[in-house]
Amino acid sequence: MTRSRVIRETAFRWQGVEPHAYKDVAAHHRGVTRHTLLGGEGRDPALDIETRYFEVEPGGFTTLERHAHPHAVVVLRGRGEVVLDSVVESLTPFDVIYVAPWTTHQLRAATDGVLGFLCVVPRERDRPQPVADGAE
Amino acid sequence: MTRSRVIRETAFRWQGVEPHAYKDVAAHHRGVTRHTLLGGEGRDPALDIETRYFEVEPGGFTTLERHAHPHAVVVLRGRGEVVLDSVVESLTPFDVIYVAPWTTHQLRAATDGVLGFLCVVPRERDRPQPVADGAE
Repeated sequence: MTRSRVIRETAFRWQGVEPHAYKDVAAHHRGVTRHTLLGGEGRDPALDIETRYFEVEPGGFTTLERHAHPHAVVVLRGRGEVVLDSVVESLTPFDVIYVAPWTTHQLRAATDGVLGFLCVVPRERDRPQPVADGAE
Repeated sequence: MTRSRVIRETAFRWQGVEPHAYKDVAAHHRGVTRHTLLGGEGRDPALDIETRYFEVEPGGFTTLERHAHPHAVVVLRGRGEVVLDSVVESLTPFDVIYVAPWTTHQLRAATDGVLGFLCVVPRERDRPQPVADGAE
């Protein structure tokens, strides 16, 4: 798929974009779904950028991890918080997060609602390294 | 500025991000403001990606233009439409647009409300070429 196009959204689901539930039971995350909106594998080869939407269930969280590539994050819905090394900050829609290289980070939904956010990354990037809770 | 951080949003204005009104009277746009959220000049050098928020006033529009670099666009607020070569499509919040290389494109707000959208681009990119209305 390389042509210009509009991908329509309805209730945070996008036409033709299959949500991908993280099911790796060994990983330290809970209730996270990824929607690769643009730049996914084998698609839009001109685009060096991947645009993904993540949704975290109430009480869920992403893996506490770090890596060389940076993240640009924009919150779209819900409430939650982000861990950036030793700091925890609250999040509401349209807050922006910069995750600099090698920052230990995690996104957490509030207990009473989902947290939905865009996360933009370079297509070519290193693999995240999980960080044990309390290791930093 | 290279550290990880949260940039808080209030009513589509971001802390420390100065909106930049497009004031070039020679260009063929109307009522467009740019907010460079991440990856702007001299900031976040690790980030090869610029994340910008554009707001188009009611009845306003961006320049009809084309260029080699692609765009990843996510609508955040309001209503409007996008021109992609010979096609015009309506837009509502959270619709996603891929603008492939050399597609002639323009974003237009509805006459009765603003159109706000994120536009993600590579930091290194070619200069847009305006296209005369009716030329394609």
